[in-house]
Amino acid sequence: MRVKSYQRKLDIKNGCVDLSHGSGGRATTQLVLGLFHEAFGNEWLARCNDQSAFGVRSGRMVMTTDSYVVSPLFFPGGNIGSLAVHGTINDVAMAGARPLYLAASFIIEEGFRFSELKAVADSMGAAARAAGVHIITGDTKVVERGKADGLFISTTGIGVLAAGLDLSAERATIGDRVLVSGSLGDHGVAIMSRRQNLAFQIDIVSDSAALHDLVAVMVAAGGADIRVMRDPTRGGLAATLNEIAHQSSLGFRLQEEAIPVKPAVAAACELLGLDPLHVANEGKLVAIVAPDMADAVLAAMKAHPLGCDAADIGEAVADHHHLVQMSTSFGGGRIVDWLSGEQLPRIC
Amino acid sequence: MRVKSYQRKLDIKNGCVDLSHGSGGRATTQLVLGLFHEAFGNEWLARCNDQSAFGVRSGRMVMTTDSYVVSPLFFPGGNIGSLAVHGTINDVAMAGARPLYLAASFIIEEGFRFSELKAVADSMGAAARAAGVHIITGDTKVVERGKADGLFISTTGIGVLAAGLDLSAERATIGDRVLVSGSLGDHGVAIMSRRQNLAFQIDIVSDSAALHDLVAVMVAAGGADIRVMRDPTRGGLAATLNEIAHQSSLGFRLQEEAIPVKPAVAAACELLGLDPLHVANEGKLVAIVAPDMADAVLAAMKAHPLGCDAADIGEAVADHHHLVQMSTSFGGGRIVDWLSGEQLPRIC
Repeated sequence: MRVKSYQRKLDIKNGCVDLSHGSGGRATTQLVLGLFHEAFGNEWLARCNDQSAFGVRSGRMVMTTDSYVVSPLFFPGGNIGSLAVHGTINDVAMAGARPLYLAASFIIEEGFRFSELKAVADSMGAAARAAGVHIITGDTKVVERGKADGLFISTTGIGVLAAGLDLSAERATIGDRVLVSGSLGDHGVAIMSRRQNLAFQIDIVSDSAALHDLVAVMVAAGGADIRVMRDPTRGGLAATLNEIAHQSSLGFRLQEEAIPVKPAVAAACELLGLDPLHVANEGKLVAIVAPDMADAVLAAMKAHPLGCDAADIGEAVADHHHLVQMSTSFGGGRIVDWLSGEQLPRIC
Repeated sequence: MRVKSYQRKLDIKNGCVDLSHGSGGRATTQLVLGLFHEAFGNEWLARCNDQSAFGVRSGRMVMTTDSYVVSPLFFPGGNIGSLAVHGTINDVAMAGARPLYLAASFIIEEGFRFSELKAVADSMGAAARAAGVHIITGDTKVVERGKADGLFISTTGIGVLAAGLDLSAERATIGDRVLVSGSLGDHGVAIMSRRQNLAFQIDIVSDSAALHDLVAVMVAAGGADIRVMRDPTRGGLAATLNEIAHQSSLGFRLQEEAIPVKPAVAAACELLGLDPLHVANEGKLVAIVAPDMADAVLAAMKAHPLGCDAADIGEAVADHHHLVQMSTSFGGGRIVDWLSGEQLPRIC
């Protein structure tokens, strides 16, 4: 890093971000080099350009973006930084693609502590390294006190798609099986447990995780018979399945007793009047799979650490109203609608 | 767009964004389809997936990201939306690359008017179409009133790089010429003219523009003899040249009278105690070009509408202190330092 000569050391322990760190001048460079490059360090960032270049082979790629505004910034099982990296990797992976590179952009409120920013950046770096992806370009903006809420992060990911794969929401077909990779509602309940006005003691951590490796074993097992995959984040499984139902012009019928929900999460949801099917997940996926291949894909999922609680929870059915219906444990049935309002703001 | 069946019409004239529009449920879909897809509409968005796929040929690509927090959101010559599209295209173009696809992520404050959001989105769509790029994926988050400042936009761009090009900040060489594509300071002064506490009447509009086409003619003329290009945004020309000086371990010597600054911008800067070399530009570039090729590149710039006021303003020189120095019109000299503090917060 040849620009180190003009880098003064940040007082990370005691210092705060001020407006000068967003000026594009010396202070911005000091923050970017002293904090973000330290955390993400790689050959691309070291060149200190406003963009980074990388080689590609002929084929297909995918691109996805997300902004993260989660509150609180730190929660059991992660923080806004690890969440941003995992979430963006997952949106790349849901196409069946292998994530390669991330871009990260920071909007910071004046007065935000360097020590917290470093903790977030270090989590991002660790999450990226663990997933084998690189944060190759970024941006830092600072707004006045009271014009943001500590820290927002926008991440964009790109990845490569294997030939022959075309997972898309309109490909679900009547008779397809609905697979989920594990227990539902963990992330949302972990966040709720740390909200000031909803503090309760509970032993639940966010499921925030990068799912690309799980996806790779699923694609190896099911190939193009996996019609569509989605990570049920905001709005939970209910929103995800309702979206797919509309986009594929069919319905879903689920078996309630097949849907994995941890007892502590179920108890917390009951206390709060929430439906676990509406609560956000950040390390789970839903896959709609052709019936002949569903058992093989499910077996591959169960053999992976992030899919050990995977389950076949229902099937795609003909339905002109595109409803998601569920047979309950008591023998009845109910419609699993998506929420029209906002139950859990700023969950991701 | 097969999901239209569950789209209710937004009341764009009178309505506002509320927290439900960030829930990931029905209201989010309504906002995304009714407003963003209308403005950006293309085959990728129409598939309504969390990511979009595209074909690539083997070679090299570039990626860049920026967050936009400009205040006010609307200013003479553009708004936060057109600025985001232009700025991201420009960061792709500064590598000598051809921009292809953009991702756009929105952080919206509760209560923000649909009509303003539509105006911003329409500007983004128009700017993208005019530049021949596509906004292929996006995200929308909503935060509570008082937790943001109306609207922030993060955009990420990717593009393809011609074989043999490797523009990078460490490639400037002693003797290289410094070219700028036009008058400096227009964007910053246009923003200042609309700041509540600095209102003055002045006939200056932002220079916000997409520079990729200008870059293409420059690359055709100069090829690999263009060592580095940068768009002098935050921190202005002063910050850009100081960065390159450090990254290339040399200095620059500029001729003040060669630097194009519009009289009205110069007058406004004098009134406000600003140096136009510190003021942001959003439609200008600086190119460091090998001396033998500088005249040809400058001629190509002058023949392009966005480079008609281009000028050769100085050269790269040996300097162990990596200073940017300027010979003034009065025969003296001064050091063009970058700002250590923040002169113009939230200029982009």
